[in-house]
Amino acid sequence: MSNQAEDRGRELKDSLRIFAGSSHPELAQEIADYLGCRLCTRCTRRFSNDNLFVQLGESVRGKEVVIIQSFYPNPSDNILEMLMMLDAARSASAKTVHAVIPYFSYGRSDKKDAPRISITARLIADLLATAGAGHVMTMTLHSPQVHGFFSVPTDHLTSHLLFADYFRQRDLRNTVVVAPDIGHAKRAARLARALGIGVAAGDKERLSDDTVEITHIIGDVAGKDVIVHDDEIATGGSIIALVDKLREHGAGNVTLACTHGVFSGPAIERLQQVPEIVEIVTTNTVPLPKEKRLPHMTVLSVAPIFGEAIRRNVLGQSVGSLFAYWPDPS
Amino acid sequence: MSNQAEDRGRELKDSLRIFAGSSHPELAQEIADYLGCRLCTRCTRRFSNDNLFVQLGESVRGKEVVIIQSFYPNPSDNILEMLMMLDAARSASAKTVHAVIPYFSYGRSDKKDAPRISITARLIADLLATAGAGHVMTMTLHSPQVHGFFSVPTDHLTSHLLFADYFRQRDLRNTVVVAPDIGHAKRAARLARALGIGVAAGDKERLSDDTVEITHIIGDVAGKDVIVHDDEIATGGSIIALVDKLREHGAGNVTLACTHGVFSGPAIERLQQVPEIVEIVTTNTVPLPKEKRLPHMTVLSVAPIFGEAIRRNVLGQSVGSLFAYWPDPS
Amino acid sequence: MSNQAEDRGRELKDSLRIFAGSSHPELAQEIADYLGCRLCTRCTRRFSNDNLFVQLGESVRGKEVVIIQSFYPNPSDNILEMLMMLDAARSASAKTVHAVIPYFSYGRSDKKDAPRISITARLIADLLATAGAGHVMTMTLHSPQVHGFFSVPTDHLTSHLLFADYFRQRDLRNTVVVAPDIGHAKRAARLARALGIGVAAGDKERLSDDTVEITHIIGDVAGKDVIVHDDEIATGGSIIALVDKLREHGAGNVTLACTHGVFSGPAIERLQQVPEIVEIVTTNTVPLPKEKRLPHMTVLSVAPIFGEAIRRNVLGQSVGSLFAYWPDPS
Amino acid sequence: MSNQAEDRGRELKDSLRIFAGSSHPELAQEIADYLGCRLCTRCTRRFSNDNLFVQLGESVRGKEVVIIQSFYPNPSDNILEMLMMLDAARSASAKTVHAVIPYFSYGRSDKKDAPRISITARLIADLLATAGAGHVMTMTLHSPQVHGFFSVPTDHLTSHLLFADYFRQRDLRNTVVVAPDIGHAKRAARLARALGIGVAAGDKERLSDDTVEITHIIGDVAGKDVIVHDDEIATGGSIIALVDKLREHGAGNVTLACTHGVFSGPAIERLQQVPEIVEIVTTNTVPLPKEKRLPHMTVLSVAPIFGEAIRRNVLGQSVGSLFAYWPDPS
Amino acid sequence: MSNQAEDRGRELKDSLRIFAGSSHPELAQEIADYLGCRLCTRCTRRFSNDNLFVQLGESVRGKEVVIIQSFYPNPSDNILEMLMMLDAARSASAKTVHAVIPYFSYGRSDKKDAPRISITARLIADLLATAGAGHVMTMTLHSPQVHGFFSVPTDHLTSHLLFADYFRQRDLRNTVVVAPDIGHAKRAARLARALGIGVAAGDKERLSDDTVEITHIIGDVAGKDVIVHDDEIATGGSIIALVDKLREHGAGNVTLACTHGVFSGPAIERLQQVPEIVEIVTTNTVPLPKEKRLPHMTVLSVAPIFGEAIRRNVLGQSVGSLFAYWPDPS
Amino acid sequence: MSNQAEDRGRELKDSLRIFAGSSHPELAQEIADYLGCRLCTRCTRRFSNDNLFVQLGESVRGKEVVIIQSFYPNPSDNILEMLMMLDAARSASAKTVHAVIPYFSYGRSDKKDAPRISITARLIADLLATAGAGHVMTMTLHSPQVHGFFSVPTDHLTSHLLFADYFRQRDLRNTVVVAPDIGHAKRAARLARALGIGVAAGDKERLSDDTVEITHIIGDVAGKDVIVHDDEIATGGSIIALVDKLREHGAGNVTLACTHGVFSGPAIERLQQVPEIVEIVTTNTVPLPKEKRLPHMTVLSVAPIFGEAIRRNVLGQSVGSLFAYWPDPS
Repeated sequence: MSNQAEDRGRELKDSLRIFAGSSHPELAQEIADYLGCRLCTRCTRRFSNDNLFVQLGESVRGKEVVIIQSFYPNPSDNILEMLMMLDAARSASAKTVHAVIPYFSYGRSDKKDAPRISITARLIADLLATAGAGHVMTMTLHSPQVHGFFSVPTDHLTSHLLFADYFRQRDLRNTVVVAPDIGHAKRAARLARALGIGVAAGDKERLSDDTVEITHIIGDVAGKDVIVHDDEIATGGSIIALVDKLREHGAGNVTLACTHGVFSGPAIERLQQVPEIVEIVTTNTVPLPKEKRLPHMTVLSVAPIFGEAIRRNVLGQSVGSLFAYWPDPS
Repeated sequence: MSNQAEDRGRELKDSLRIFAGSSHPELAQEIADYLGCRLCTRCTRRFSNDNLFVQLGESVRGKEVVIIQSFYPNPSDNILEMLMMLDAARSASAKTVHAVIPYFSYGRSDKKDAPRISITARLIADLLATAGAGHVMTMTLHSPQVHGFFSVPTDHLTSHLLFADYFRQRDLRNTVVVAPDIGHAKRAARLARALGIGVAAGDKERLSDDTVEITHIIGDVAGKDVIVHDDEIATGGSIIALVDKLREHGAGNVTLACTHGVFSGPAIERLQQVPEIVEIVTTNTVPLPKEKRLPHMTVLSVAPIFGEAIRRNVLGQSVGSLFAYWPDPS
Repeated sequence: MSNQAEDRGRELKDSLRIFAGSSHPELAQEIADYLGCRLCTRCTRRFSNDNLFVQLGESVRGKEVVIIQSFYPNPSDNILEMLMMLDAARSASAKTVHAVIPYFSYGRSDKKDAPRISITARLIADLLATAGAGHVMTMTLHSPQVHGFFSVPTDHLTSHLLFADYFRQRDLRNTVVVAPDIGHAKRAARLARALGIGVAAGDKERLSDDTVEITHIIGDVAGKDVIVHDDEIATGGSIIALVDKLREHGAGNVTLACTHGVFSGPAIERLQQVPEIVEIVTTNTVPLPKEKRLPHMTVLSVAPIFGEAIRRNVLGQSVGSLFAYWPDPS
Repeated sequence: MSNQAEDRGRELKDSLRIFAGSSHPELAQEIADYLGCRLCTRCTRRFSNDNLFVQLGESVRGKEVVIIQSFYPNPSDNILEMLMMLDAARSASAKTVHAVIPYFSYGRSDKKDAPRISITARLIADLLATAGAGHVMTMTLHSPQVHGFFSVPTDHLTSHLLFADYFRQRDLRNTVVVAPDIGHAKRAARLARALGIGVAAGDKERLSDDTVEITHIIGDVAGKDVIVHDDEIATGGSIIALVDKLREHGAGNVTLACTHGVFSGPAIERLQQVPEIVEIVTTNTVPLPKEKRLPHMTVLSVAPIFGEAIRRNVLGQSVGSLFAYWPDPS
Repeated sequence: MSNQAEDRGRELKDSLRIFAGSSHPELAQEIADYLGCRLCTRCTRRFSNDNLFVQLGESVRGKEVVIIQSFYPNPSDNILEMLMMLDAARSASAKTVHAVIPYFSYGRSDKKDAPRISITARLIADLLATAGAGHVMTMTLHSPQVHGFFSVPTDHLTSHLLFADYFRQRDLRNTVVVAPDIGHAKRAARLARALGIGVAAGDKERLSDDTVEITHIIGDVAGKDVIVHDDEIATGGSIIALVDKLREHGAGNVTLACTHGVFSGPAIERLQQVPEIVEIVTTNTVPLPKEKRLPHMTVLSVAPIFGEAIRRNVLGQSVGSLFAYWPDPS
Repeated sequence: MSNQAEDRGRELKDSLRIFAGSSHPELAQEIADYLGCRLCTRCTRRFSNDNLFVQLGESVRGKEVVIIQSFYPNPSDNILEMLMMLDAARSASAKTVHAVIPYFSYGRSDKKDAPRISITARLIADLLATAGAGHVMTMTLHSPQVHGFFSVPTDHLTSHLLFADYFRQRDLRNTVVVAPDIGHAKRAARLARALGIGVAAGDKERLSDDTVEITHIIGDVAGKDVIVHDDEIATGGSIIALVDKLREHGAGNVTLACTHGVFSGPAIERLQQVPEIVEIVTTNTVPLPKEKRLPHMTVLSVAPIFGEAIRRNVLGQSVGSLFAYWPDPS
């Protein structure tokens, strides 16, 4: 290591203080390791009235403080705990407080699709700023517009390259990328273009939050292997319906590729019962407990992406290449 | 009913829209009944990624909207749900959004008694304003200073008169009011003065959140019946320790009087095993499920207080007499 | 007219003050006519240094003030003029200032699809609030998420029903709705569902802002008439490329249906040279000068929608049915 | 002095600019001396209409600016002058503006104990932020909750250790700490615990702001010397009444110990006429003019505490050990 | 009085609550009388540490609250008291809080004419908004630009017509209006134009706040009577110097005309010693104690102007004609 | 160059990123040259709906970003473009964003001189802060009070010294400075004092924005050469009228001296037809295209003033001597 690199490493260690919320300490540790820093201690407990209490374990005065929290598996607790950590860091005179949110779950609540509801993604963005976040880093928001909900500088990082690199190692000549929903086909179209292959989409009828019917497949999938690409898989209801329809249309093997592997409720059980699904590729933005790790599941780590983004932020270097710019998929 | 009263009743019905969060619909219904209004419907469910979704069931455009939520039994969910309801009401063009919080649980987190923690009572007050609360009504905050954490007009209502009225019916000539902690003795001193009797206090050593030792009783309790008065009973740990010490000092029967009957964890089991405790008097700011209702428990209803405060707010009348002004206990 | 209706009409006239910016006084007049109100005078001129000067021609003290401005044909001047009008109304003690923006042109700048750019739709939303807008009414934003950029209550109205009603009068048995871009196919899918017909989409490669190549048509259009549905047509570049591709795929007649008929630069000339385009259906959210009105063009008026939304806002009635809720197109 | 220490000293001198308001230049000079820095000049005068005019005497561009002002002896002028100094520093492009307020007099106005009053402690905290304070340092607030009134990072320093160190040098075997008011007994209980001795409290009846009656002494003081501990002594009315009562209960010598020695109006005259009061221990948070310095008065200097807090803030070091964390007195 | 007028009068009485600060209760009473309303009680006292305490004597919930305070004779106390009254009214749920400031003394601190000073007029405007002012009414600001310092709607009323009406009754054929300072000659030029007579100006050299030298008279005054017109007379230093110079240039009798008659320090004594000064015309924006009322002094009342502005604000009527629009004096 | 100077130069280059808006790239380049820095690229184009699109060409993360834009020749576009550049820089995590506005055209809209207008100078100041400006540098605002409209630290630079230095080289014994309007005579009086000569002023009657009549000349100009000094010349209407009047009063040669040489509309043509005008001295705050450069025009460069102000800001040095403090002209 050169002298300059050593200096930078020391500068990072001196100025950074990294704390993990309760949701995903493993990822936080990986990010700290990437940066060559210790993960600072943080103590969370409940008062006797079930209120949360959080204490940061180390002085943050004048430091660049990084708080890492995914909003799963306990979204409300995870969010409250993060808000309290942000507040604690700010009021303890941190230089800047960076909120790192690998999985911003409320990104899906990004519009008014019914009267008298909250655009909760905007609400949470405002709450984070109120609590003291001076900078946000997050990944693969449900729609790229959610970026605009944040009033503080926000780095919207992408897992796109992880997937593109992973799939480029295969022979994709007979493969097509399929978007589960024509209303959100841009992400799939973008991956297809990066891989140099075609794109198709399901036309989805939602009967309830967990029950959808895929009414058509728009585009040609007959005789082709498919990569189903989405930002998030929760209960897997849409995916199962899609694979049924793909089967009807004569598609071959199916690989699922999603950034946020939530796999809630019956998801794991359901997915492993579908024979066409030969592989599930996801990332570690959400903690994946052992019992959910299926044999044909591949987990790509986002720690180097977040670690590098933090490093460049603290050192004042460009992080453009790590961003999810969502250019037109062409 | 006079014509003017009828007019006012109609004005209330026309302009008010009352919604209950999930925490305590029974109290909300009682308040609506007091006001002669319907409780509007509200739909809360979870998305497949466990995020909350809330929808107000009725148009609020140009209305005085009242959202009622206690922060127990699920503080984080209750708070998030309330924030979303506030946001939904504001963004649907309510005239004013009133946040009614019978039990503001985080009132206890009102100071920095350790480094690098959040003064969460202030944080929550700020979050409520960010989400759209234009006016807050709450009751018996842990300390009267918490009132000052709110940046929007806030009515700090008191249950003081409920207790004073209740106990005045007794022969109190041999009774003393005891504060569990000399550091928070003002509330007890105030009740004592209202009842025209003496006050004493425990001197508490906290070993952990749930374990305290009462090292002294300051003041004279020998041969006297006592009313132990506190704002909140959670696991009951402090109370049990206090009663032990009172017994040592020769006190007689014990009546517990607390505004917020949280009774979490082992509280109910513990309290019913103490023979000196002859009665527990509390209110319904927190929902009290059937299985927690002991035979010697009295629950005073705060619905008329909140109902009246809402009525006067909407009609622009003085509510001073309902407030917790916390004058010096003298 | 009943007495109550008369009362309401008088209430509207008393409390409303409607002003038009320079961009589209005809639509403002239509809206005022719908409401039975006068359009108040407004004087705009340029100082000798080309700065704008705007004066509202009537007292607004204590009134519900409505400022109507589309952000075309001179976006920068139109925006500045609107900000000045909002500021003038607020600082002259208006009760509420409603910004009515039939065409919010910067809705397209809704994400970071390149480094170091402004999400200008959010920026403009913030500027409107800074200048004094207390409530916004707009129509058919480029994406439904833009709704979340506004920090003040915002009614996102839809022209959806206008189009559905218009096309339902036809025999659509051999017709399919086509989205110009699979990345924005939701709007077209929604119209298709409302009409009970199928949907297809172009897969677009953007070479520059004005030059795109449609690489595929996803879905089946051979032998079918098509309704191309988009939120906005500007220079028409994408549309021309799409129609070329539709021709290749054997489609029949083409009807263009767009909410915001900007028709900038060479649009009109280009569109009238394409024989397949048998009709262009648009609305009057943007002023359409005489010379741009082609014989096969139909302009649907949005004045009743805005007028009704204003009426209900001022009277405190629900406007839900006028909104663009953007439920999943299923 | 080591090289590193020299570097730090130079860094402090380069980056710090310390200014004193008019209230207490002596303390400001002591703090500057502690830090090895010059006190910068500041010019305050009155315009002919009695308005204040303040000018900072040295460039503050890019500097850590410290403004030191106690809110006594002329609270309104002192506050206005401080607000103007904060505004001047911020608008002259200071890097950070630190408001150092050794005596935050309005801390006593921390709750609504009567209708339609201002919680002025919160108001002043908001005014300081509006005027440009980016960080606040203060000492021994009337109640620890006042900390939560500040929206900017605030260091609540304690004089607790000064008193504990001072009294530990004595033989305290026959001494008890007495709180003047059971409603504010925590501070006294805390000192008692630090000294390993007992605590008692007066039960106070306030007849007016300056007239109180101590109705009881709760706890045992007969035959004991007492240390009366309070945050502030103003006219001394309460103290005199307490000493009367202590005498009745057979207490011995009395030592007064208070952080903020305001000694307003008749205080000095009154206190020197009470023979039991053998010593008065206070600090220099408030200026104590020569004519108020009684022979049996000891003034502990808080300059090292503020100086060290400033030093560590500028150098980004932990100041936790200097804080008033107010843990439960146990 | 017609029925409609009666209704309006009752509406005013029902919705208005008028409070006077300590500075000028006489003017407040006159304003209340104009409006046919009672002046509500207000209690101000000092705590023993000289802090202010203020309580509003009547419920303000849902009311239009008017707080009247001039910033003289004790600017700092007057400002603090007003901020506390605003805060008390807002936090007691007033509908709107109107700050009526007949003499906004800090209007003179309206620019940076030295480095590192505060533009205190802007600062005070911001403090008023922070404390809860939702609307401001004031008169004859030192410069018309100060209007722009307020972020809430502000009515800048003028005393111009009072003076014009007063002087129009005279024979002015041999009279000229003189501005004391060519740098602030607009006000005088405006009065001159209204009276149809000429204008001249002194060219002032300021040696200190209280000592100026008038170096020239620009324009012709020889043999003419003069009206010296300024916004404010404080110590009178500039005026005396001007009259000296006018005498040198052969001017005749001098009438002083100023809106804000502060007459601080030696002003009264000085002015009565100048034989040329035959009359002093001022208004009652500032309280003028008996001992300052010279025989040749005329005090015009501004109560009808403020009263009418309040009336029209509450009733939602135009107040344009009462404003100080400061058009170019031509 | 010394080592220390080299270090400073390198520090500047490392930390500064300078961008020019579209209005005046030549001045931006001169400023960058003064600082020894590159001017970073910036790309502005119009979308097909005539919306602006702006992209900063270089990473700004952690940098001091300077955005240079005059609000002429296309005020609305120039302002919008600047707001977008500020937003882009802030949201791309710039350390500080400095808005450099050599000509703040809306400074003239600094008061309410008619009802229901916007004090647009304040509005624009607020918009700049909303968009992300953390610091503003500007020059010779129309009135010094406009400084107080900015809520962020603002350096109001002066061109005063440029003019004083320029004119001091001449024999001024028979010269007088003339202000076009007695209402704005301070600027001229100040220059006169710096040059040690007399001052006179026109008394202006404005008939419309572009048509004024000068009714008198106040002060003596007969037989003297004059320097007419104003902040800005736009269409030149006032100047022409003034020169006519000066001629009537027997004045000699006329030199025009103005900071902002807008010269809009017929200005150039008009001015060159007046024989008395022997020279026009202006600066380059506004771009002056070749065709407007008359032979007798002198353009003084403000680049060194802005460059030096930027340099000292970034290095944390005093810039007081570059400021326009506007002390009384005496």
